[in-house]
Amino acid sequence: MDEKYMERAIELAQKGVGYTNPNPLVGAVIVKDNRIIGEGYHMSYGGPHAEVNALNNAIEPVEDATLYVTLEPCSHYGKTPPCAKAIVEHKIKRVVIGMIDPNPLVAGNGIKILEDNGIEVITGVLENEIKSFSEIFIKYITTKKPFCILKTAMTLDGKISTASGDYKWISNEASRKYVHRLRHRVSAIMVGIGTILNDDPRLTTRLDDIEGKDPVRIIIDTSCRIPLDSKVFNINSNAKTIIVTTKKAPSEKISQLMEKNVEIIMTPLKEDKVDMECLMERLGQEKIDSVLIEGGSTLNYSALKSGIVDKVISVIAPKIIGGANAKTPVGGEGIQLLNDAIQLKNIKVSHLEEDIMIEGYVK
Amino acid sequence: MDEKYMERAIELAQKGVGYTNPNPLVGAVIVKDNRIIGEGYHMSYGGPHAEVNALNNAIEPVEDATLYVTLEPCSHYGKTPPCAKAIVEHKIKRVVIGMIDPNPLVAGNGIKILEDNGIEVITGVLENEIKSFSEIFIKYITTKKPFCILKTAMTLDGKISTASGDYKWISNEASRKYVHRLRHRVSAIMVGIGTILNDDPRLTTRLDDIEGKDPVRIIIDTSCRIPLDSKVFNINSNAKTIIVTTKKAPSEKISQLMEKNVEIIMTPLKEDKVDMECLMERLGQEKIDSVLIEGGSTLNYSALKSGIVDKVISVIAPKIIGGANAKTPVGGEGIQLLNDAIQLKNIKVSHLEEDIMIEGYVK
Repeated sequence: MDEKYMERAIELAQKGVGYTNPNPLVGAVIVKDNRIIGEGYHMSYGGPHAEVNALNNAIEPVEDATLYVTLEPCSHYGKTPPCAKAIVEHKIKRVVIGMIDPNPLVAGNGIKILEDNGIEVITGVLENEIKSFSEIFIKYITTKKPFCILKTAMTLDGKISTASGDYKWISNEASRKYVHRLRHRVSAIMVGIGTILNDDPRLTTRLDDIEGKDPVRIIIDTSCRIPLDSKVFNINSNAKTIIVTTKKAPSEKISQLMEKNVEIIMTPLKEDKVDMECLMERLGQEKIDSVLIEGGSTLNYSALKSGIVDKVISVIAPKIIGGANAKTPVGGEGIQLLNDAIQLKNIKVSHLEEDIMIEGYVK
Repeated sequence: MDEKYMERAIELAQKGVGYTNPNPLVGAVIVKDNRIIGEGYHMSYGGPHAEVNALNNAIEPVEDATLYVTLEPCSHYGKTPPCAKAIVEHKIKRVVIGMIDPNPLVAGNGIKILEDNGIEVITGVLENEIKSFSEIFIKYITTKKPFCILKTAMTLDGKISTASGDYKWISNEASRKYVHRLRHRVSAIMVGIGTILNDDPRLTTRLDDIEGKDPVRIIIDTSCRIPLDSKVFNINSNAKTIIVTTKKAPSEKISQLMEKNVEIIMTPLKEDKVDMECLMERLGQEKIDSVLIEGGSTLNYSALKSGIVDKVISVIAPKIIGGANAKTPVGGEGIQLLNDAIQLKNIKVSHLEEDIMIEGYVK
């Protein structure tokens, strides 16, 4: 029975997708006499927490009720007062928690307040499911660096374009829609300068059913070659564009970009390129909790090799094009020995109509 | 109930895998008073048919019993007398058939004999399942050309070896075992001369649980460059080796190969290479009903482009190695426009431990 209500709390949590970063997705349900009397979720960054929304939305007195919440209630004064205190004040009798706060500095403090006030606390209900949709929050809160998703689309023979450069489209419409949903989910999208020069993409979120939230656009551009008339500078979007460059950039070009209200991040050179690890620290400081890398094969290799990638999503279209010179999803110099290959774990396979999606986590 | 017994007949049919080519896999079950009283399957090429084996194995009189058989009983005198006649003689009352004989010249004749003799006939029980494991037979009997399976193994970023040429092993042990099961299943295995020069493989079937049947080894070698000390000439195997070459081969080399008891097939040149379509006709004449192509990227492209490939099996290992110069499963010149890509249909995804196997049919 606890699982049934926690499932509903999970459903509610998902409604916040795209709007809470870098805060977690959290859902809460209040149950009394086996009926739901209040529901809430964390709707937007800085807004009231799920528990408080559920308490406020309750249609009956919540005294002696059970509260289901996907994440341990907070114990500190942040942008809002501590939820654990509100729960105590509302005389909730029992609290069922999905996941303990992953932040080691906080974990357990919310539970302690509840228990010290005589509230029965159960933890770990549907924990794996909750950890799964909280992967961005868990990485960010424990490391202060963004969770990086590398997304590629290739043919069944491993190509991201034909030998002559035709790439529209490798994957089907369902897959491309899924990518826009990912863009809505994350805080930032990252491409390399090669993608800008070849495709001049907008890098915005375009969804049919909801008004998607554009991610921050991050362009890796070691020598600052980006044309000033690129589409990323000339679109109507609330999200900013960040050019990541190095001392190889001409200072005049930097000045021109500054005039365009673009943010510039300079990193040290690492193997003659942008230092990706350094960049991740910087992005974390800017409260960017997640980055979707939609790079070409060069950026993808740099990202994987630097160790910043947490998750790989590979969409495979059931078609074959051949071509010894056709590009593959991950290029660069490459790893020389199979024993040194980057291994993925927790593989999940799903279908996007006829396309196949393989997801895995870097070991 | 009919499906239950047909499932058992299918199980029996599978026992013939590797031994019946180019004859079909067939299983038969005789049922009386809801008990199985006889079972049989087609055990080896030229041997008695499944129905006759089931009739002979019956532990009780078969009069008035029901016979379940995966394939329509034959009506002609071939290597054995017609099964339809034997069924009539044994006074079977009812015959349940999975698949009608796909050979348009024969289809329905077996059923006609049965019905003309007052036997009730039901057809199409578990037909799709039977068609699926009979794909080799169906292609061969209707076209007189072998069913071609192209099998590849690659990393999740589309590579069959690292940039420096390390390829042992891309796929895991379970996948490699599966390949040996495929070799046992088919009549022939095909590689290009590149694979011989690089890897010098044995191309035999090595299985733990059964004594595998070696496939005929076919080597595509346009200019007859194969070294005389290659392992394929010096292994203990009942299966022959065929070198497929063209007028580009030095005649002296051909003579040397003839001395090694090797079969030589000469084809016309097509785009300066072996004519694959012509080769398939010739292999069909030699009763080779199926070919497993385990080529490198060059042969794989030639085979796909020539249109001889029926099925693609792609094993994907959940690892990434990168490398702009690493080889991919299908090379060659490549198809230039995505609209002209070779499309696969009836996609099936399965798992070989952590490896992912994608199977599909060329549209």
